[in-house]
Amino acid sequence: MNVAGLCTSAGINIALCTGLASLYSILRKQPSNVSVYFEQRISQVQVNEEDPITFDRYVPSPSWILRAWETTEEDLLAIGGLDAVVFFRIVLFCIKVFSVAAAICICIVLPLNYLGQPVHHKRIRTESLTAFTIINIKARSEWLWVHCAALYIITFCACVLLYIESKSIAKKRITYILGNPNKLSLFTVLVRAIPFSGESYSDSVTNFFTNYYPSSYLSHQMVYFPDTIRQLVKDAEMMLKMLKAPNPAPSGSNLGGCGLCGINKKPFKILSKNSTDSDDDRTEFVEDLREKECAAALVFFRTRYAALVAAATQQSPNPMLWVTDMAPEPPDVFWANLCVPYKLLWVRKLGVYLAASVLMVFFFVPVSFVQSLVYLDKLKENFLFVRKLSEKRNFIFDMITGYLPSVMLTVLLLTVPPLMSTLAAVEGPVARSGRKISACRKVMFFIVWNVFFSNILSGSVLERFDTLSSLWDIPLQLANGVPSLAVFFMTYILTSGWTGLASELMQPVVLLCHWLDIIFFKGKPVLGYGPMTFPYHTEIPRLLHFGLLGFTGSVTAPLLLPFLMVYFILAYLVYRNQFINVYITKYDTGGLYWPVAHNTIIFSLLLTQVIVLGVFTIKKAEVCSSCTIALIICTLLFHFFSRQRFFAVFHSTAAQVVMEMDRQDENSGRLKEIHDHLNSSYCQFQSSPCSTHDKQVKEFNEQMRSTFGSFKSTSRTTIPKALELGTNRADADDKNPGDSLVILFTYILYFVLKYPYFL
Amino acid sequence: MNVAGLCTSAGINIALCTGLASLYSILRKQPSNVSVYFEQRISQVQVNEEDPITFDRYVPSPSWILRAWETTEEDLLAIGGLDAVVFFRIVLFCIKVFSVAAAICICIVLPLNYLGQPVHHKRIRTESLTAFTIINIKARSEWLWVHCAALYIITFCACVLLYIESKSIAKKRITYILGNPNKLSLFTVLVRAIPFSGESYSDSVTNFFTNYYPSSYLSHQMVYFPDTIRQLVKDAEMMLKMLKAPNPAPSGSNLGGCGLCGINKKPFKILSKNSTDSDDDRTEFVEDLREKECAAALVFFRTRYAALVAAATQQSPNPMLWVTDMAPEPPDVFWANLCVPYKLLWVRKLGVYLAASVLMVFFFVPVSFVQSLVYLDKLKENFLFVRKLSEKRNFIFDMITGYLPSVMLTVLLLTVPPLMSTLAAVEGPVARSGRKISACRKVMFFIVWNVFFSNILSGSVLERFDTLSSLWDIPLQLANGVPSLAVFFMTYILTSGWTGLASELMQPVVLLCHWLDIIFFKGKPVLGYGPMTFPYHTEIPRLLHFGLLGFTGSVTAPLLLPFLMVYFILAYLVYRNQFINVYITKYDTGGLYWPVAHNTIIFSLLLTQVIVLGVFTIKKAEVCSSCTIALIICTLLFHFFSRQRFFAVFHSTAAQVVMEMDRQDENSGRLKEIHDHLNSSYCQFQSSPCSTHDKQVKEFNEQMRSTFGSFKSTSRTTIPKALELGTNRADADDKNPGDSLVILFTYILYFVLKYPYFL
Repeated sequence: MNVAGLCTSAGINIALCTGLASLYSILRKQPSNVSVYFEQRISQVQVNEEDPITFDRYVPSPSWILRAWETTEEDLLAIGGLDAVVFFRIVLFCIKVFSVAAAICICIVLPLNYLGQPVHHKRIRTESLTAFTIINIKARSEWLWVHCAALYIITFCACVLLYIESKSIAKKRITYILGNPNKLSLFTVLVRAIPFSGESYSDSVTNFFTNYYPSSYLSHQMVYFPDTIRQLVKDAEMMLKMLKAPNPAPSGSNLGGCGLCGINKKPFKILSKNSTDSDDDRTEFVEDLREKECAAALVFFRTRYAALVAAATQQSPNPMLWVTDMAPEPPDVFWANLCVPYKLLWVRKLGVYLAASVLMVFFFVPVSFVQSLVYLDKLKENFLFVRKLSEKRNFIFDMITGYLPSVMLTVLLLTVPPLMSTLAAVEGPVARSGRKISACRKVMFFIVWNVFFSNILSGSVLERFDTLSSLWDIPLQLANGVPSLAVFFMTYILTSGWTGLASELMQPVVLLCHWLDIIFFKGKPVLGYGPMTFPYHTEIPRLLHFGLLGFTGSVTAPLLLPFLMVYFILAYLVYRNQFINVYITKYDTGGLYWPVAHNTIIFSLLLTQVIVLGVFTIKKAEVCSSCTIALIICTLLFHFFSRQRFFAVFHSTAAQVVMEMDRQDENSGRLKEIHDHLNSSYCQFQSSPCSTHDKQVKEFNEQMRSTFGSFKSTSRTTIPKALELGTNRADADDKNPGDSLVILFTYILYFVLKYPYFL
Repeated sequence: MNVAGLCTSAGINIALCTGLASLYSILRKQPSNVSVYFEQRISQVQVNEEDPITFDRYVPSPSWILRAWETTEEDLLAIGGLDAVVFFRIVLFCIKVFSVAAAICICIVLPLNYLGQPVHHKRIRTESLTAFTIINIKARSEWLWVHCAALYIITFCACVLLYIESKSIAKKRITYILGNPNKLSLFTVLVRAIPFSGESYSDSVTNFFTNYYPSSYLSHQMVYFPDTIRQLVKDAEMMLKMLKAPNPAPSGSNLGGCGLCGINKKPFKILSKNSTDSDDDRTEFVEDLREKECAAALVFFRTRYAALVAAATQQSPNPMLWVTDMAPEPPDVFWANLCVPYKLLWVRKLGVYLAASVLMVFFFVPVSFVQSLVYLDKLKENFLFVRKLSEKRNFIFDMITGYLPSVMLTVLLLTVPPLMSTLAAVEGPVARSGRKISACRKVMFFIVWNVFFSNILSGSVLERFDTLSSLWDIPLQLANGVPSLAVFFMTYILTSGWTGLASELMQPVVLLCHWLDIIFFKGKPVLGYGPMTFPYHTEIPRLLHFGLLGFTGSVTAPLLLPFLMVYFILAYLVYRNQFINVYITKYDTGGLYWPVAHNTIIFSLLLTQVIVLGVFTIKKAEVCSSCTIALIICTLLFHFFSRQRFFAVFHSTAAQVVMEMDRQDENSGRLKEIHDHLNSSYCQFQSSPCSTHDKQVKEFNEQMRSTFGSFKSTSRTTIPKALELGTNRADADDKNPGDSLVILFTYILYFVLKYPYFL
């Protein structure tokens, strides 16, 4: 591709982005779209939908940009938690590093590359973009030390900034823990692999903890099999319907389905305060319940320190029994996974790793196809029709080589996060945030491998038309591949980056679903999702991938950097806007995305250095090569130091911190309050937010609670909120536009198959 | 090499072994050698050296074999600790697995290999040994499923045995911990990276632990810089000499070295009970001492559980401060490493890994040379003098190809364990047992890489006279290499294995040093070492390496197995004899060598399967290949399961176990006794066992102690035994024949350089 091709691509994308942003600024003013663009604000205050229709509503305005710009980090922390802060720290890190890199590389490296060989340059419009890359420098050039110095400066800046950010985020995390004395998870330990002894799992837990932790054990709550509870909930709902029916039919016939069988099936027991045989019934009910317990429980301790200690030590000499871990916060618990037998967890993990690897390998096929379009230049030498195409219509040819591959790649990549998210859930994390982090790592691996490596490697292979003879050649292959592929990555930044941000702003899929809901389902949220949580597992890998492209391109193909800078600045504004307007925060990890980001950035730096080392080897610059090797070693040392110094903060809470918190609460007398709260905070089956019979459910719940109230004194077991009614959408509502898209496709397919005459 | 060559080699070795064993049975009866062959027994009872000279003393007898055979595991546990038991479990595991493997492979696989191709067989004497390997089977043979089945049976046996052994050893470890209520390490936490605050490190520790662990903190003991204490000890020794001199000269002139300077240097302070200004002096002395504290301390807790908890949790929000760990047992502490700043540990570790890797790579050169001797067959086609040699003297040629390479390899390998041991010490372990485990792992890696991989790979490369074109070829290369190299490994088993065992029995180096001491140094232990601890870091890798050879050879070259069986049975007897007679046990790891062994055995199994897979691929047996892939997956699954199920037992102690122990001690009232003992058990500078002025030292110590006695009440800091006199040989006495050999070589070199006319 030449400069003209790049300009075409950039022009299309700038137009698209401006158009989408303008459209957004109009659409967001329409009252009917408030549930798409202001979900976060709705969750806090009731917005009045009945705005008068004014001219102002149909004029694009940049007010949202100003608002996003003015948001402070404190606001962000309040709205999105520490994770949002970490996210913007990553964006800011990229902006800072790449402004330094851009300054150096555009001013010094780029002219050097362009004038690298004493050839006659064509007109700039038709100049091939590879003339701006390091490839243009002639071998044994005495100017390669400039590249080496630039690499040193960029690495140094990146490491210093990483150190500062790590330090600040680690401090923020500790402040965050200290500043949230109501975090119940710090009092709670998740115990799994409880051995069955005595009458039930619950008794085992009581015996074990009263025996070994007599002074600090408060109470516990068993985890029940989801299906059991779902059945109970169903029965109870049916009962409610029956009770509330205007003219109740005789119960036997009503329950028998067809009413003809004549057998009184009695699928549930009616418990009431006034029934005379309630004691018998209760005992039976509790026994029923005991059979449905899993070998897992949430154990509550009197102090945070006691919980920390119980979680940190191995309880039983058999490491497969009494496995303890800190519990997640109540809204963060992934209930469905708590019942997974602990013994099977490693099998699941292994299976998931295998599945993810297979997915990564097979994705290589479409990526290779996409890649081959970039090399249409090469292909036209071999295939006639390609040559004809390129000769006849130059604009279309530019489109195909410059634009289509990255659009296809973007669309293909959209299907990956939902898949990885599913895999991460199968793996068995006990927290929804844990699942997101796991998905984030998987998507990260996937993108780096499939977009970066397989693109470059397959690209170089295609270009050189020979096979990889040895693994040792990879650095050289990369060195060959990156500068020439920088062109592809530029268009990738334009499409996946810029246009991606514009569509993030527009939320086209959500908007479409919302409109379809209004048109076809009378406004009921069938396709739409209501409040969404921020898709960290897609956005962080995307950001970091662009960071990787930036680092690897900085010295070898600096023309990439301006596009990237624009992307990061846009990202800063767009994501701020989305955080304060769209996404709600149900749970957060407390900044656990930072280690992922840290590792990826270090990996990017190392990869850059290896690639530049390869280039220096190809260009036969021995001194520069050895300097680069020294730099690689220094970067590795920095990485090990950072791991040692900062990562422990993210993995465990310090005893000192929780002890201080315990003391403060004890002195202020708040501990008693927290203990009372603990017993009722974890509830396996919450009322669904969109349930239509909230009032009935509440009534029923109160009835149930009064029935169970008397048990509380007999044992330390808390009667779980689990028995409160309503379907549990907690595990299922982590959905994002990606999933929406999949569901939408399914609907469209269904529609097409049902009404084929429409087409 | 042909069958005759093998027989020659076997003959030489059998003769050598029998000779050495007979010599041993005579030498051990000589009273003068009692310190070489009965060190372990000397350490328990005083042996009477004045035996009458009888005829019986000069006749070889097999009585030691009987005694070794009759030793039970209980005796072994009492003598050598759990590590000795684990060692013999490894030997027994190998005997069991390889008897099954030998039965199957010799009876079924070996004849199949021999008759694998319909060629006319030569006389068995001149038959090439490769005729007995899997190479002889023709491609697409319908009999390859037998090999596959044999591989399945061997893997199955190995896994079942591993499971049984792991379970039994994990149980033994828990019993061992429960059965040693006097283990002081369970009460002790090693705290490193103490921040300096207040007056001294000691004050920091007191403040921190009285603040956060008020109920469980007992006392602590600071660690001092070794050099400081060494200086103190030197001063004190000098003072002692002065005090005990018959006619003491005026102290000023006596201390000034030449006596002319006239300055009263006063390098130490004389403290006495009766001095009037003792209070001032004491304060000054204590302040002196405080300046010499490291940022590390041993903190004693009232209960084991409290210590476990303090060690398991992260103390400070800054993970580089207040780093806690369980302390080793008093004789196991590696004092010199306690003072290493915690911040530098990772640098040291990294440096050591690098150094070890470099060593491994550079060792490749001599190994390749050794290897080239095996391929003399190939070389003689190219080099004239080799051809002449082989034509003229067949016996010598057999010697060179069959015997010399492995002898050279054995000698070369002797220098490795001391090097790795030094590297392991530099890495910074706080326990001497930890150092040995680390050295064991390094030696293991080294041997597997240098003896196994580099032999096979360089061998195959030499044989095929082409280079490795890709890393993917490695399984195929291994498949090519192993069966043909099995010949080399057979002689390796004969020399390094059989003869190695005989020399282990004889202890030629120690015996030589002992004799040289008697002749040149009038019996003073200058070259000799006195009591030795068992060199687990050389013997376990050796055993496991033979295991690796056995597994990889079992299906591909079954002729190896009988030699190996003999080796393991001999090893069982010889090492038992050595444990009950020679080696003393100063410290043990409590079975921590088992995870190393477990991992290596699994690795061996996997490697075997990969090699056989390579062979099946070469022989184009598709069904067998896929069956082998399934087996590899099953083996991996078993490994992950075992890790999950058993390894945690080796890494940490269960809370339940220590709580039970605490309760028992509390009920029996023994806890108070242990607390008293704790304060005086860890002593940084012990009296050396060979010091000649023990009595004087004792007197001085008592004086010192009475001076310091009054401090004990003012602070909870224990005055360390560190101040007791005597040089510290604790860190230096982990020496083994390998080190002896190095020192002996140095002496010989010195001797040769000084008196060159002797040669």
